[in-house]
Amino acid sequence: MSTPPTSGLLQVAAIQQTGSSDKQTSLATTERLVRKAAGDGARLIVLQELHTTLYFCQTEDTAIFDLAEPIPGPTSERLSLLAAELGIVLVGSIFERRMNGVYHNTAVVFETDGAIAGIYRKMHIPDDPGFYEKFYFTPGDAVFNNGISGFTPIDTSVGRLGVMVCWDQWYPEAARLMALAGAELLIYPTAIGWDVTDEPAEQARQLDAWVTVQRGHAVANNLPVIAPNRIGIEAQPNGQGDGIRFWGNSFICGPQGEVLARADDSSETILSVTLDRNRSESIRRIWPYLRDRRIDAYSDILKRVRD
Amino acid sequence: MSTPPTSGLLQVAAIQQTGSSDKQTSLATTERLVRKAAGDGARLIVLQELHTTLYFCQTEDTAIFDLAEPIPGPTSERLSLLAAELGIVLVGSIFERRMNGVYHNTAVVFETDGAIAGIYRKMHIPDDPGFYEKFYFTPGDAVFNNGISGFTPIDTSVGRLGVMVCWDQWYPEAARLMALAGAELLIYPTAIGWDVTDEPAEQARQLDAWVTVQRGHAVANNLPVIAPNRIGIEAQPNGQGDGIRFWGNSFICGPQGEVLARADDSSETILSVTLDRNRSESIRRIWPYLRDRRIDAYSDILKRVRD
Repeated sequence: MSTPPTSGLLQVAAIQQTGSSDKQTSLATTERLVRKAAGDGARLIVLQELHTTLYFCQTEDTAIFDLAEPIPGPTSERLSLLAAELGIVLVGSIFERRMNGVYHNTAVVFETDGAIAGIYRKMHIPDDPGFYEKFYFTPGDAVFNNGISGFTPIDTSVGRLGVMVCWDQWYPEAARLMALAGAELLIYPTAIGWDVTDEPAEQARQLDAWVTVQRGHAVANNLPVIAPNRIGIEAQPNGQGDGIRFWGNSFICGPQGEVLARADDSSETILSVTLDRNRSESIRRIWPYLRDRRIDAYSDILKRVRD
Repeated sequence: MSTPPTSGLLQVAAIQQTGSSDKQTSLATTERLVRKAAGDGARLIVLQELHTTLYFCQTEDTAIFDLAEPIPGPTSERLSLLAAELGIVLVGSIFERRMNGVYHNTAVVFETDGAIAGIYRKMHIPDDPGFYEKFYFTPGDAVFNNGISGFTPIDTSVGRLGVMVCWDQWYPEAARLMALAGAELLIYPTAIGWDVTDEPAEQARQLDAWVTVQRGHAVANNLPVIAPNRIGIEAQPNGQGDGIRFWGNSFICGPQGEVLARADDSSETILSVTLDRNRSESIRRIWPYLRDRRIDAYSDILKRVRD
């Protein structure tokens, strides 16, 4: 924290793509888009949640654990080589097999030389019809065996990255913890979509809520947000449900929550933006929220319910 | 908390008005608008921050403490009579003299019989050029002498109200604490505006950030938000600054952050909406954020900085 914040311009990109049941097919699409984004100047590129496969949590099926990989493992090695070849910082997402019986939904950050700069294991795990994540993913450790908090940003050559995953984006506590630890960007690889049977007005509210709550984290913490999301309709594997239409709308916003770029709900997209990293510093001088936090009065946040 | 949530429809109104240096003039405008809102069916009416006066924090002037009043006092008694006459729940704002040397920026909630249902003393106090609130207002107690937390919602006949004030709206911790204590509505009487010398693009970002962060609290807590704000240009009293143009844009949103009504930036407005109080319950069943909070991993929120 004694390090001054990273300053200057930084071109970042978020990749919005469909998934495939075949990892090599998914990764080939990812590689094509990442090469294009890097060729266009992006130095930090963020992939969506579980980008190597379909969103497999629509059912609870023990065979699906075969998709998991250790870190390092085949997918992380392929992403590592890509980051090193292009000289970029790359944020990927891996269904991680930590040991037999312990699997995580893990974001992996690769440095420009291909080294793993750090990992983040999804802390908040959803579970609702079509999104049965609690069956597959153990929540990230509150405190790891090395004493590090589960909400720890990852230091890279392009800044200190507050990497979280999807469902975490509904929790202001998570964004705040990253900000308090000096995160300079908030990053949310995502896989979210509509129940195709929901009314259009309800679908619109859900999408807008998803964008708004993350823009709210940007505002409350004076930090940019990068949120890539999946596209495509994925049928429910057992054919009993209606499937999910992933709503895309990947976006990047600045530290006042201002939307700098936003994708549509169905197109393969490279969303690229040049961030001015001096903005967080200048905004925090005149809208100094962190100065006035009432840490003497927040203790009940550690309670489940104040009943 | 064993009480079931308040259900059914509730018509609410937010009052957006100019302030006057004369309390009786300001209160006459307020009364006229409140009578109209109640006549049109509103059962809960929310006034803006410091509605009886100009926004006096543009300078630091010891004479201004003469504007403060005890609670109960003349302004609270007038608002109490109004609430009782109209049979409404009314949220007012008072520059409170608690004792000599201890003043607060206090919201007061009146029941339909005129009784004071509760008060909330602003917990987060801003201080930046033109908003010298730290000179006037002691922050609300973290824990009052009776053991009650400073972030405690107020029970009324129209539900449990999460009343906060202005600068509190930038703090997700405050909204969360109210929600965890069973608040059914988040309410933010406000006085916020533009430095008239800021660029239009910067003014637009500030206004949008203000709306967005509060809509984000609605989303993250599955609760409606009512936010009345002041209008009018108020010159700096000593003539050395440019003054503030209060930006209005009072709004009411639902528990998915959906904007239900929003005022413009300069018109006296009664913003009236009928809320369906069953929505929070139904949304919390399918988007159950409170279920998955990682209270085992949030303890560093009680730190100033995680350094």
